[in-house]
Amino acid sequence: MAKLALAVHGGAGTIRRSQITAELERVYREALRNALAIGWQVLEMKGSSLEAVEAAVCSLEDFPLFNAGRGSVFTHEGRQEMDASLMEGRTLKAGAVAFVRNIKNPIRLARLVMEKTEHILLAGDGANRFAEQMGVETMPDKYFFTDERWAQFQDALSRGEVQLDHAGTQPSPETAVNATPKPIGTVGAVACDHAGNVSSATSTGGMTNKRFGRVGDTPLIGSGTYADDLCAVSCTGHGEYFMLTAAAYDVAARMRYSGLSLSEAARQTVDRLTQIGGEGGLIAVDSAGNVSMPFNSEGMYRGRVDASGELVTGIYNENI
Amino acid sequence: MAKLALAVHGGAGTIRRSQITAELERVYREALRNALAIGWQVLEMKGSSLEAVEAAVCSLEDFPLFNAGRGSVFTHEGRQEMDASLMEGRTLKAGAVAFVRNIKNPIRLARLVMEKTEHILLAGDGANRFAEQMGVETMPDKYFFTDERWAQFQDALSRGEVQLDHAGTQPSPETAVNATPKPIGTVGAVACDHAGNVSSATSTGGMTNKRFGRVGDTPLIGSGTYADDLCAVSCTGHGEYFMLTAAAYDVAARMRYSGLSLSEAARQTVDRLTQIGGEGGLIAVDSAGNVSMPFNSEGMYRGRVDASGELVTGIYNENI
Repeated sequence: MAKLALAVHGGAGTIRRSQITAELERVYREALRNALAIGWQVLEMKGSSLEAVEAAVCSLEDFPLFNAGRGSVFTHEGRQEMDASLMEGRTLKAGAVAFVRNIKNPIRLARLVMEKTEHILLAGDGANRFAEQMGVETMPDKYFFTDERWAQFQDALSRGEVQLDHAGTQPSPETAVNATPKPIGTVGAVACDHAGNVSSATSTGGMTNKRFGRVGDTPLIGSGTYADDLCAVSCTGHGEYFMLTAAAYDVAARMRYSGLSLSEAARQTVDRLTQIGGEGGLIAVDSAGNVSMPFNSEGMYRGRVDASGELVTGIYNENI
Repeated sequence: MAKLALAVHGGAGTIRRSQITAELERVYREALRNALAIGWQVLEMKGSSLEAVEAAVCSLEDFPLFNAGRGSVFTHEGRQEMDASLMEGRTLKAGAVAFVRNIKNPIRLARLVMEKTEHILLAGDGANRFAEQMGVETMPDKYFFTDERWAQFQDALSRGEVQLDHAGTQPSPETAVNATPKPIGTVGAVACDHAGNVSSATSTGGMTNKRFGRVGDTPLIGSGTYADDLCAVSCTGHGEYFMLTAAAYDVAARMRYSGLSLSEAARQTVDRLTQIGGEGGLIAVDSAGNVSMPFNSEGMYRGRVDASGELVTGIYNENI
């Protein structure tokens, strides 16, 4: 019997204590604990790591304060488009969807792509048509709508932020400093089951006021999500940097090719992101049930189940 | 002065001598040589590796027998949707587009995404709107149409191949044996310039009769295309396997973390693909100007400029 392990995240970024009331902090921690409890139950019932991460991410998608599923941010056109991906390490199978609409749980659709098609990534209208054919649960626009995201969108719209047509160039250490606010709230989960098999899942609503069909790292295997026989990784942060460094796969590569431990590999991957100006973090688990959750941002909504079965959560740089 | 280097490919797969006439072989080799000559001229005029791979890929996109740009295959809806990506190793910048339509040279649009936006990957209608805003050259449907691709499409359509709704599952060593015909003709280029900087570019028309907005490896940084200060890689083959192994980035990871040479790293990446049932190949160049072009399929349309400046091409397993 391998050591069971489970970790979740609800996004990394500038999370200031001064901006979060005690009540709001309690709500966030409860959402993280709920996701952990749901995923942990799957693992304890001898469920697979894939089932555990899917269940945990569904719970996080349903929570309206994270930027995934219900509560996703708005695109420039005022739409809520969602991305998700998951990967099972044992079988090296993966599934992903990009800018789907009205899907209650995009991570479930990603799993259907993995199991019912020969492909890995389906995008846009085509992915929605596939969902319809599969009979996946959909919800009307109003289900996904939250006042907070709408206000964020109106604010970004009025300030012209996160558009592609201004003088902005590709992310670099210089531009990162003055960059527009990063989206916070991408969610993810990693797990190790009783057989020592690991899986990961990630889901997001993307960037507020994004235009031109921008695809970030979340639906991309190797960038936002990766799992093999060594480890499983779910990333969150300024997506373009995770794409340029193949961040999720990079953790596995450092373990396999450099012989690093999970925590050394995960830390070095985040250090590399820091080096090129990328902000964010990741959660990772290896096949021995070790968990690592490094980040270079001010905070990362995160949680894990510790060795004694206790659910612990963190928001700032506290050690958990 | 670094050693200049340039290589191109026009796709890997089942290429049988018996199915290619001497005349057709001559035409393919000439197309590869044309692309090499155009890219080489850029490098000899002290142009950057990025400019060289863009120029070479434009030439391959314009050639109607490869599955990229003009001559792209048809989706299930009878449309020609194209993907492309490029990356500059020195700056670690990248740009990519997925299922764009009517863009004469998708690789040029990918470069504009890299240079004019804060993002890396734009997809679908949004990418086309961005192209319009940038004033990128477009062509009517009839420019992209070829009788051969239309016949392939009608054939695939009538046989129900490459659809997502049949009993097919994710690629595996077992299913790969009996899989539907792989698309051949994705194009790509890698180069090392006078300063020892390397870049790569890849462009494709995707899979014949594909449905549901399937995205393959070509527009994905780390999967189909990658470049850093060590090497530049462009992949071609059954895309899903290249996504599952982060194939393009994997070559760089094996060099950096295992200390392998370019040719050892590239060979091991292809061996890994073989191991999981993935068919295809890649072209790679390192910052010392070495070139490697391994593949595990019957053939790969490919070419390189050798040390004496001669343009050499290969189609089958001949040593070039």
